[in-house]
Amino acid sequence: MQEKKTNGKSAILLMHCPDQPGIIAVMTEFITKNGGNILYLDQYVDRTNRIFFMRLEWDLENFIIPQDKIEEFFGTLYGQKYNMNFTLYFSDQKPKMAIFVSKMSHCIYDLLARYAAGEWDVEIPIIVSNHPDMEVVAKQFGIEYAYFPITKDNKAEQEAKEIALLREKGVTFIVLARYMQILSPEFIDLYPNKIINIHHSFLPAFVGAKPYHAAFERGVKLIGATSHYVTSDLDAGPIIEQDITRISHKDTIDNLLGKGRDLEKIVLSRAVAKHIDRKILVYKNKTIVFN
Amino acid sequence: MQEKKTNGKSAILLMHCPDQPGIIAVMTEFITKNGGNILYLDQYVDRTNRIFFMRLEWDLENFIIPQDKIEEFFGTLYGQKYNMNFTLYFSDQKPKMAIFVSKMSHCIYDLLARYAAGEWDVEIPIIVSNHPDMEVVAKQFGIEYAYFPITKDNKAEQEAKEIALLREKGVTFIVLARYMQILSPEFIDLYPNKIINIHHSFLPAFVGAKPYHAAFERGVKLIGATSHYVTSDLDAGPIIEQDITRISHKDTIDNLLGKGRDLEKIVLSRAVAKHIDRKILVYKNKTIVFN
Amino acid sequence: MQEKKTNGKSAILLMHCPDQPGIIAVMTEFITKNGGNILYLDQYVDRTNRIFFMRLEWDLENFIIPQDKIEEFFGTLYGQKYNMNFTLYFSDQKPKMAIFVSKMSHCIYDLLARYAAGEWDVEIPIIVSNHPDMEVVAKQFGIEYAYFPITKDNKAEQEAKEIALLREKGVTFIVLARYMQILSPEFIDLYPNKIINIHHSFLPAFVGAKPYHAAFERGVKLIGATSHYVTSDLDAGPIIEQDITRISHKDTIDNLLGKGRDLEKIVLSRAVAKHIDRKILVYKNKTIVFN
Amino acid sequence: MQEKKTNGKSAILLMHCPDQPGIIAVMTEFITKNGGNILYLDQYVDRTNRIFFMRLEWDLENFIIPQDKIEEFFGTLYGQKYNMNFTLYFSDQKPKMAIFVSKMSHCIYDLLARYAAGEWDVEIPIIVSNHPDMEVVAKQFGIEYAYFPITKDNKAEQEAKEIALLREKGVTFIVLARYMQILSPEFIDLYPNKIINIHHSFLPAFVGAKPYHAAFERGVKLIGATSHYVTSDLDAGPIIEQDITRISHKDTIDNLLGKGRDLEKIVLSRAVAKHIDRKILVYKNKTIVFN
Repeated sequence: MQEKKTNGKSAILLMHCPDQPGIIAVMTEFITKNGGNILYLDQYVDRTNRIFFMRLEWDLENFIIPQDKIEEFFGTLYGQKYNMNFTLYFSDQKPKMAIFVSKMSHCIYDLLARYAAGEWDVEIPIIVSNHPDMEVVAKQFGIEYAYFPITKDNKAEQEAKEIALLREKGVTFIVLARYMQILSPEFIDLYPNKIINIHHSFLPAFVGAKPYHAAFERGVKLIGATSHYVTSDLDAGPIIEQDITRISHKDTIDNLLGKGRDLEKIVLSRAVAKHIDRKILVYKNKTIVFN
Repeated sequence: MQEKKTNGKSAILLMHCPDQPGIIAVMTEFITKNGGNILYLDQYVDRTNRIFFMRLEWDLENFIIPQDKIEEFFGTLYGQKYNMNFTLYFSDQKPKMAIFVSKMSHCIYDLLARYAAGEWDVEIPIIVSNHPDMEVVAKQFGIEYAYFPITKDNKAEQEAKEIALLREKGVTFIVLARYMQILSPEFIDLYPNKIINIHHSFLPAFVGAKPYHAAFERGVKLIGATSHYVTSDLDAGPIIEQDITRISHKDTIDNLLGKGRDLEKIVLSRAVAKHIDRKILVYKNKTIVFN
Repeated sequence: MQEKKTNGKSAILLMHCPDQPGIIAVMTEFITKNGGNILYLDQYVDRTNRIFFMRLEWDLENFIIPQDKIEEFFGTLYGQKYNMNFTLYFSDQKPKMAIFVSKMSHCIYDLLARYAAGEWDVEIPIIVSNHPDMEVVAKQFGIEYAYFPITKDNKAEQEAKEIALLREKGVTFIVLARYMQILSPEFIDLYPNKIINIHHSFLPAFVGAKPYHAAFERGVKLIGATSHYVTSDLDAGPIIEQDITRISHKDTIDNLLGKGRDLEKIVLSRAVAKHIDRKILVYKNKTIVFN
Repeated sequence: MQEKKTNGKSAILLMHCPDQPGIIAVMTEFITKNGGNILYLDQYVDRTNRIFFMRLEWDLENFIIPQDKIEEFFGTLYGQKYNMNFTLYFSDQKPKMAIFVSKMSHCIYDLLARYAAGEWDVEIPIIVSNHPDMEVVAKQFGIEYAYFPITKDNKAEQEAKEIALLREKGVTFIVLARYMQILSPEFIDLYPNKIINIHHSFLPAFVGAKPYHAAFERGVKLIGATSHYVTSDLDAGPIIEQDITRISHKDTIDNLLGKGRDLEKIVLSRAVAKHIDRKILVYKNKTIVFN
């Protein structure tokens, strides 16, 4: 759906519930009857699981329900009745994104260049790393850099510090921009469908470490990259976006690494853009990504 | 939208009208109130032109309005009120497709292979050609072949015969499978948005004859193919589907022709599939193609 | 390398040997000194394994060594000296291709349509199947169809009959056009790098049966197809060609099957074309595919 | 050809000449006889124009001809004899790249991020602009920024200053990173095949200004980007690289601009990488781009 622009505030509803006739009518009537002007509506019905998914955005300018009451009204009127799982966002509450990075700069530069250009409606209050190398990049863009070296022995306590910092900064989601350190299940559980990773292969091929080396070994003719939400099951979380590029027998591992970097940063940024725009729903380890 | 299957008959509504709040609600209510079960709903709002587009499909099994009355009811109740432009199709009325072909076999083989495999819900009562060469292919698949040689002098009368034949066969749309003969505006006017052509370039680049030669001359690194509805403005009708493939300085014109053939047949068949599924709407020389 | 056309006969040399300076010079001098006109030269050096690969084609019109002596001369003069692994082909000795098929028609139609159009320099003397279904297609194109139903008990003897038939027909390579029956290692050993399979996933993802179902389950955003030479290690032979297409949450398994068919036939045909043109070399389970 | 690495210095020869038998042998013999170890050889024969193209790289460590004499020796021994057009480069003489930019940051960030990461063997001594906006980006990366506002009246004199500055900085090639100002033919003539532009369409479609708007108007299903060498004929210079991305009726012009930015920066950077690696030859307004 082509989006309508508004200068004012808008509300975004992401929801799913068991499918039933007339659900779109009920939802759109709720908005329009109460003075809301619909800016975006896209819906999808999973016929196998009989689940209805929708993203609805409306202008709050003449909406008669106050912003801080919408969730309550909505939940009371429809939430229970339709067995609805829903989340409300407001355009004036920007998502806050933390970037986790290790030593490679291509993804973080791509993210920060978009941020600096105002391409995304997001704030980046903090960059976290297990290495000091990328501090210079953080400085270029004037963003705070928190260095937490991780060893087998200190992982739990360092993660605790990281979590405290993320809370202090009001972080709402995390982007692993080639962060080469596995997060603990406890950490991941705090951010369900809120940690986006970039894996440097077309998953589920080449799970785990050194996928380009494995791809070279296997002699594939395409290499890929996959952005996905992180779950405690390594490289097995819900896939948001994938893309590939063509290679040939002439390509060395170094070439694969180079071509891969271009894929990784674009595929990661596409996922981040969709997350910032609140256009992703997750159901049974799969994503519904609205246009 | 993921489609629900039904064994029975269904109705398909393709419509557009000036956008206004609640239109989806009105339409879905009309269906469900009258006993129809919605199998498919996809909609799109063109915010620039403020036009609402929708494709709606519902099961007729328990629908209380008789099939031959639906159009009348719908038109009376909503057509004028919403200034709606709509077309109704029924799943038990298969589209009838004529193939126009000249001398090249790749597109027609691709179409007929799908037809023979039962991939499409369509009938192909007739193949029309300005050359005798493809009669052998028509015979392989047991389809009638009508040969109308065209010269400057006989074009009008030959087209008249073609049109008479198409009518006799009940043809509802025409596929130009590399038909190398320009149809007259009078012919085209009889089949608005019902003639699908494949042009062997990524339009609007390389309009007209010999696009691969022009692409070679220009030294492009990609070649493409474009399927579109035919209008009297050459190669300028509404684009349905496009795709490209990568080439290099090593490719001769012969290579381009070969790579192009693979593109052409796939890009044409994708457009035909969408047309057969009644998933294409045309507005102001552009297509809305539903998933 | 852009190919030169010749109306006469040509010789094609596919070779690899340990890399050493001056090898191209030696080879090209051998051709030109003896009156051969080079039509094609492409070479590749695997720097890791220090192996030199080359495809060389030359016009035999004024070549002073008789066609049936070239192999002997070449082997004597260079084969042992350079520890060379080489194969000679002649343009007047067309490869003979057997198609193995089960019940699905999309790949075989694509192969036969190209064959009928004269797109490939190949003969297809026989189609082999473990099912009777595709006999109708073989008949359309006037090609002999051999039906060998396979059960656990008769597999060895049926394969023996197939092999006898392939020999009788002079078959030089086999194309598995969605042949849903695993060949025995004994069969495969008789045709090293001469059996081309199409697997309906981007290998190594989704090895084995029902890859589209597995892809749907995993929620990938791309599906692929892979053509490869068959080895006794299932779906693990040298990859010749791969391609992918984009899917979304809206695609049902049926959609994946449909989009997959288009991929499969194109990816298989690209591999077959390269094989027919003698442009593929295999080394350590990987392919070198010349342009 | 897979490249061999060397820690020492190497020479790179880019050449073309009328095709004749034995030319590869002569060239490789020249290198190896004089103690050079070939690191890279790729060649191409344009059979239509009968032109031979080659890129040859060899290790200078044991090469008996001194670096500053190679050009003379080569020219004397082969240049005239074979009517050869050749250029010699040395690995210890880094290309020096100037970036010209206007107001958009996506391309320049992509270039500078690669530069900062040491991805390319290049120096960037200067960024030139007709606007002050990007000075902040230049500062982030510590690169000198020269601001030359251009009006109709001062264009000639400002260009003269730019040229003086480029000379002072030893610039060997120029990258127009969305530089929205047409260079004069006099300027272009000073840098033949040394100015790389990114055009935001798949040329030759949508030449000139506002190609995304034109693409939207036309209703194409793909948008593209093209990097090319600048000639005095607008958007008509030799194409180096192109790529496309898929769009649909749902995409607004803003979406096209966003998707286009990702294309533009990648397609521009691929061209710049090839130029830095001295892998591009130009002949009759077309490029030969070696792997």
